[in-house]
Amino acid sequence: MIFSPLVLPVVEPLDSSLRDDLQRIIDAKTKPPGSLGRLETLARQIGLIQQTTQPSVTRATMIVFAGDHGIAAEGVSPYPQEVTAQMVANFLAGGAAINALSRVADLTLEIVNAGIATPLPDSEGLVNIPVAYGTRNFMHEPAMTRDQVIAAVQAGIERVRHHAALGTNVIGFGEMGIANTSSAACLMSRLCGVSIDECVGRGTGLDNAGLAKKRNVLASALALYPASIHPLDVLATFGGFEIAMMAGAYMAAAEARMVTLVDGFIATAALLVADALVPGVREYCVFAHASNEAGHRRMLDHFGAMPLLALDMRLGEGTGAAVAVPLLRAAVAIVNEMASFESAGVATRRP
Amino acid sequence: MIFSPLVLPVVEPLDSSLRDDLQRIIDAKTKPPGSLGRLETLARQIGLIQQTTQPSVTRATMIVFAGDHGIAAEGVSPYPQEVTAQMVANFLAGGAAINALSRVADLTLEIVNAGIATPLPDSEGLVNIPVAYGTRNFMHEPAMTRDQVIAAVQAGIERVRHHAALGTNVIGFGEMGIANTSSAACLMSRLCGVSIDECVGRGTGLDNAGLAKKRNVLASALALYPASIHPLDVLATFGGFEIAMMAGAYMAAAEARMVTLVDGFIATAALLVADALVPGVREYCVFAHASNEAGHRRMLDHFGAMPLLALDMRLGEGTGAAVAVPLLRAAVAIVNEMASFESAGVATRRP
Repeated sequence: MIFSPLVLPVVEPLDSSLRDDLQRIIDAKTKPPGSLGRLETLARQIGLIQQTTQPSVTRATMIVFAGDHGIAAEGVSPYPQEVTAQMVANFLAGGAAINALSRVADLTLEIVNAGIATPLPDSEGLVNIPVAYGTRNFMHEPAMTRDQVIAAVQAGIERVRHHAALGTNVIGFGEMGIANTSSAACLMSRLCGVSIDECVGRGTGLDNAGLAKKRNVLASALALYPASIHPLDVLATFGGFEIAMMAGAYMAAAEARMVTLVDGFIATAALLVADALVPGVREYCVFAHASNEAGHRRMLDHFGAMPLLALDMRLGEGTGAAVAVPLLRAAVAIVNEMASFESAGVATRRP
Repeated sequence: MIFSPLVLPVVEPLDSSLRDDLQRIIDAKTKPPGSLGRLETLARQIGLIQQTTQPSVTRATMIVFAGDHGIAAEGVSPYPQEVTAQMVANFLAGGAAINALSRVADLTLEIVNAGIATPLPDSEGLVNIPVAYGTRNFMHEPAMTRDQVIAAVQAGIERVRHHAALGTNVIGFGEMGIANTSSAACLMSRLCGVSIDECVGRGTGLDNAGLAKKRNVLASALALYPASIHPLDVLATFGGFEIAMMAGAYMAAAEARMVTLVDGFIATAALLVADALVPGVREYCVFAHASNEAGHRRMLDHFGAMPLLALDMRLGEGTGAAVAVPLLRAAVAIVNEMASFESAGVATRRP
């Protein structure tokens, strides 16, 4: 199958030629070698991504993509579908968790209507570009058409290019969409090649009966579609508009050499798609946190990722990525602001 | 033994009467219950410490206490003793890790000369109150006299009362002192009742031979002194001026109902002393991070503590506490800035 209208971003393999220079700079700082632990490896990674020995956090940005899911009709979430639109209104009013955490982390926050089930009025602060009014129910037919999935990925690419032009060099992505853990679980099952049981979690808070039902629904749905298909087909079949935009956003962020913060379960599922379509995207990613949603650890293992934080969070919206931003600021401050043993006149270890 | 001149701060047991109110407020926010994980428990803890349903981070402060140790003469550190004074000069010039990380976390930073081996000139930004020019070598005699340990604890109390008067309600403590992991390891061994082998680590970076030597030196030193003595005697015998001041600082912070961030191995050893002298101090503490220094996990277990961060840091200076400050800001922002389901008009779970 050929998706001719979609031109994917070109992502260069991470150039590691500055690795030794960065390490020398970090080791010369007034501290025992390695004693700042993961802040040091993070500083080095940011330097490599940005291709500089003076890494920075400039116009750090959070884009939250929101969309609705046809699979919600199967009762896989304890919340009604209307909550997606209601939460977007909450984002626009500044009252959601991601608003509070973006303020704390000094993040530019953008809200994107990727495809909510009800039309939203245009309003300040909303990028109102729905692909359609929610995806279709993949219990009956693929969630998106080929044109829709391409439009969504392309829109995500465009959003990130917009922010690249404004100077953003650190970015994170969040999502809102009732039932989107179901979508993400199916993507994970297909793209990681693991049983759906390993991918299904409680989402926003299913009880045991709800969890069992969600497992059954998703197992039945997966059985409807052939197993080995192109990642873009997997995305079209089980994904959501917000997940597809996020996948495009990851690719464009890597193309622009942005440091990209990966949030939780759904955001990592979108990265599975992006990295399958454009190998190397993951090298531009910092895995922000380990979500409490079952399955996230297994996805992190797929990427060989050790997330920075483990705070038992499982909200989505980009909240796990937002709380990691100060660690990036700390990492670059070490490189840019600390004195060296030589410049500070501090003695090094005894011979 | 009576230490008549030292009047210890009075620390009230943590009043948990607001627990249900705080939980109700947090649960009403627009997010699935519990989905912000440890940020929620942190918000509740801060509310209980501050006795308010509107917790805040106001004039967050970091005090770094610096002092020298007679035990350094035994070759227990790979760095020469001069580094303590040199690093204080680096702190005052703004070039150390704690300077960079305090700027990132918007912390008021204070440097205290608690007892460095060489006299330091008075200078702006330095609280120059040395108890003496370094402790004595506890391989030969107790590190401090009774008068010295009391003076140091009292000075730590006074520093925190000073900041309380200026409005600080969140505080962290750091330290600098060549050989102070040796001091802290002996305090831990005595106050936790564990073998010195469980307490000794590589400090700033000892090799295997250096580590073996440190173990032998400290085992011999411990054998010189009787095992069951008063915590203030343990502190006087094996402690340092910076550790003693920090112990006093913890007590005064708890007295003032400050949220107190606990840094790594040495800072936690000082808390062992403070909490032994004034039970309940620990209830005002947030354990910021798990240090990579061997022994720290065991100390955290002593307090039943689950630190917020695990970033393989082992620098001291308060750096682990500093990087945790944005998590406190995030926690209070959730309480103060997020809308409730009701106020935002968001539907709750289906019945």
